[in-house]
Amino acid sequence: MVDRTVTKEELLERAKKPAAEAMRLHAFYHGKTQTALRCRVQDLDDFAIWYTPGVAAPCRAIEQDPALVYELTSKWNTVAVISDGTRVLGLGDIGPKAGLPVMEGKALLYKYLGGVDAVPIMLDTKDPDRIIETVLMLQPSFGGVNLEDIAQPKCFRILDTLREKAEIPVWHDDQQGTASVALAAMINAAKIVNKPLETMRIAFVGTGASNVACSRLLFSYGVDPSNCVMVDSTGILGKHRRDIYLKRADLVQRWHLCQITNAEELQGDMETALRGADAVVAFSQPGPGIIKPEWIKGMAKDAIVLAGANPIPEIWPWEAQEAGAAIVATGRSDFPNQVNNSLGFPGIFRGTLDVRASTITDEMAIAASKTLADMVAEKGLAPDHLLPTMDEWEIFPRIAAAVAMKAQEQGVARRTTTYDEEFERASEIIRSARQMTETLMREGFIPAAPSADDEA
Amino acid sequence: MVDRTVTKEELLERAKKPAAEAMRLHAFYHGKTQTALRCRVQDLDDFAIWYTPGVAAPCRAIEQDPALVYELTSKWNTVAVISDGTRVLGLGDIGPKAGLPVMEGKALLYKYLGGVDAVPIMLDTKDPDRIIETVLMLQPSFGGVNLEDIAQPKCFRILDTLREKAEIPVWHDDQQGTASVALAAMINAAKIVNKPLETMRIAFVGTGASNVACSRLLFSYGVDPSNCVMVDSTGILGKHRRDIYLKRADLVQRWHLCQITNAEELQGDMETALRGADAVVAFSQPGPGIIKPEWIKGMAKDAIVLAGANPIPEIWPWEAQEAGAAIVATGRSDFPNQVNNSLGFPGIFRGTLDVRASTITDEMAIAASKTLADMVAEKGLAPDHLLPTMDEWEIFPRIAAAVAMKAQEQGVARRTTTYDEEFERASEIIRSARQMTETLMREGFIPAAPSADDEA
Repeated sequence: MVDRTVTKEELLERAKKPAAEAMRLHAFYHGKTQTALRCRVQDLDDFAIWYTPGVAAPCRAIEQDPALVYELTSKWNTVAVISDGTRVLGLGDIGPKAGLPVMEGKALLYKYLGGVDAVPIMLDTKDPDRIIETVLMLQPSFGGVNLEDIAQPKCFRILDTLREKAEIPVWHDDQQGTASVALAAMINAAKIVNKPLETMRIAFVGTGASNVACSRLLFSYGVDPSNCVMVDSTGILGKHRRDIYLKRADLVQRWHLCQITNAEELQGDMETALRGADAVVAFSQPGPGIIKPEWIKGMAKDAIVLAGANPIPEIWPWEAQEAGAAIVATGRSDFPNQVNNSLGFPGIFRGTLDVRASTITDEMAIAASKTLADMVAEKGLAPDHLLPTMDEWEIFPRIAAAVAMKAQEQGVARRTTTYDEEFERASEIIRSARQMTETLMREGFIPAAPSADDEA
Repeated sequence: MVDRTVTKEELLERAKKPAAEAMRLHAFYHGKTQTALRCRVQDLDDFAIWYTPGVAAPCRAIEQDPALVYELTSKWNTVAVISDGTRVLGLGDIGPKAGLPVMEGKALLYKYLGGVDAVPIMLDTKDPDRIIETVLMLQPSFGGVNLEDIAQPKCFRILDTLREKAEIPVWHDDQQGTASVALAAMINAAKIVNKPLETMRIAFVGTGASNVACSRLLFSYGVDPSNCVMVDSTGILGKHRRDIYLKRADLVQRWHLCQITNAEELQGDMETALRGADAVVAFSQPGPGIIKPEWIKGMAKDAIVLAGANPIPEIWPWEAQEAGAAIVATGRSDFPNQVNNSLGFPGIFRGTLDVRASTITDEMAIAASKTLADMVAEKGLAPDHLLPTMDEWEIFPRIAAAVAMKAQEQGVARRTTTYDEEFERASEIIRSARQMTETLMREGFIPAAPSADDEA
């Protein structure tokens, strides 16, 4: 299913190709987002409505009833995309200025795919307590917060604390977003190999933000943790891992995973971890060669391989297949089965905002995963078709509606709606965001860029 | 020049009229600003440029050379409008949620009048040190900061500290913006009465944020402080004011004013303060009756009265005129000579951002004041025509160009340009912002609101 004549060098080259074009176009557009008006300005008299003296009336109304801030301002649709720039893509700690292009990109995706108004905010601090304090302080203007590209282990405590203390939903896309899409892939993979996901033996390779969150969501979905193993660069996690035990105050999640996984008390390396496993879920380091073909051979029949490292997966898809894997998913768009965060967060936040949910529960994320999985199943599931792609626009309003229903069921929603109402509303908001972009391009407010050839 | 048959009740009623319409239209539009794309999205392939993997290239470039953040992101044109909601309009401490409609309104004015992308940010704290820390932490994404509606006296320390510590320009519009426009009015008033502004005896009524800043800017312009007096509810400021001396750690600016003004060491009330003065600059509390007509009679010949309180000035314009005032200015749009902040900040920030000035100096603000004053002088100065109005669009690019030139002259600009280049650039950016709004309205992305009658 994958052109296996391609070499590592060619793939690395292909991964680099957008770089030159990205530099050229970033310099041409000078940024990816801007502020636009949401309300009319017919003439100067309207300023007396939007600013003094008229604006005093909505101010007083919100002072009397704070919930009206969702009716009389843009808070209902605005999400802050917040990062400290300490773990940007695979580039590491490049700092808050250098991370801004990514957060602007995320804001662009929020608007274009989810109709959500997102504001990129880079924080000039690395201190987790100050990040927590600042996010709490920034709440009044925003309907939600998307944390992004914050280093681990601090990102776990930041997210957990904020989910507990914030009055608006806080989401860390590198954790929950990746996990939601990975779970969708696993749900469909399990259907294809005809094994119940709940009792699968899953080997998790890597214990970074993505895999800690993936394991949490899979366990929350129903996978039995005692039957699974996790492995990091030191070896398999378990109660024997004194190195993690000693740092358990900082490594809360990892120590928790040491306790709930690996009931057999296996010790050893990645090879041991994979032996007999039904699936491997890897978010570790760029491959190839991180996962060896012979280890795949040692897995159970019809093995599922999710090799999520970027830009090169932990093992080549064809190597995994030749070694017996029934299904392979990666993070790359040029291989089948891309586990792509952009399939999740736009619809999840659309639904969350539309019912004014106070938080995004694991169950809401799972509702999104099931929606993604179901959409593919409807069209015909296949080993190289586990997940939808971003151009299947319907995924976003469908996820929005599913998430909105789950939020109401769980009592975290502050507005009620029906599935159909929310599907229609989300479809309309997202359609309008896309059409607005088209209009701005057509009318020249977003200029056409010269082609690379013209410039050369 | 003013219809003096109007009563206080009628004027208060007129000031309230926009309130009902504001409630109706705020509820209809659900906010005043939104996020729009600045760059093209032709197809899904463009996501590989704006997000992973392509976006890594501009990230790396900024990591190598942080100044490139101005070329490769929207930072160059983005201003944070930050408030804690402790002194919103005349409403007092209504809190950060209730203040949001004002900051969204300000963001709207920034875009529509100055072509500046502004983001409203309400802080859920009242602690000046946390406000200072937070603003410093928020710098990476923004090209500048507009502080707004923060209570005094903390607003003085917040602004002064941030002007010293921030690497981007920080502006407090209630101080510097009001002062810039008031100075323009005084420059033209002085021309009309044919007295040099520098040697005028000015009585400042009120020592809030506006008047502390107005006096500072007027003294910076060249007015001799020793010849002026300031008066608050306790009496005339001077070295004798033990109440201010005892709180001088908090009331730094007021104690400074006690020392530099009132060389005669006058003591007494407002009447004493106004006696013999060439001008009174009042930003105190809503009138009428705060300044008595008989006190105006005691002023020098051809007295200038700036009565800035809202919604009712400290004295009715006709009362002041009958008592001998040659010129009267107020804060109201329905009287002549409105001292309106919106004449200043959009052009001042346009020019500041365009040359990437590291700060906005008093001299840059004065350059804006002179531009405003000159524009009226060109068209014909008159006692009821001291200032331009907002529909004279040319004021904004003219101010931008004047401010940009002054920033370069003072060595605070990080880009160089000529007056004509900046005038053209600012005109184009502002024209585009207006036309974009018109297009969004015409194409229905900003819907037409039903009229109040239709709804009734």
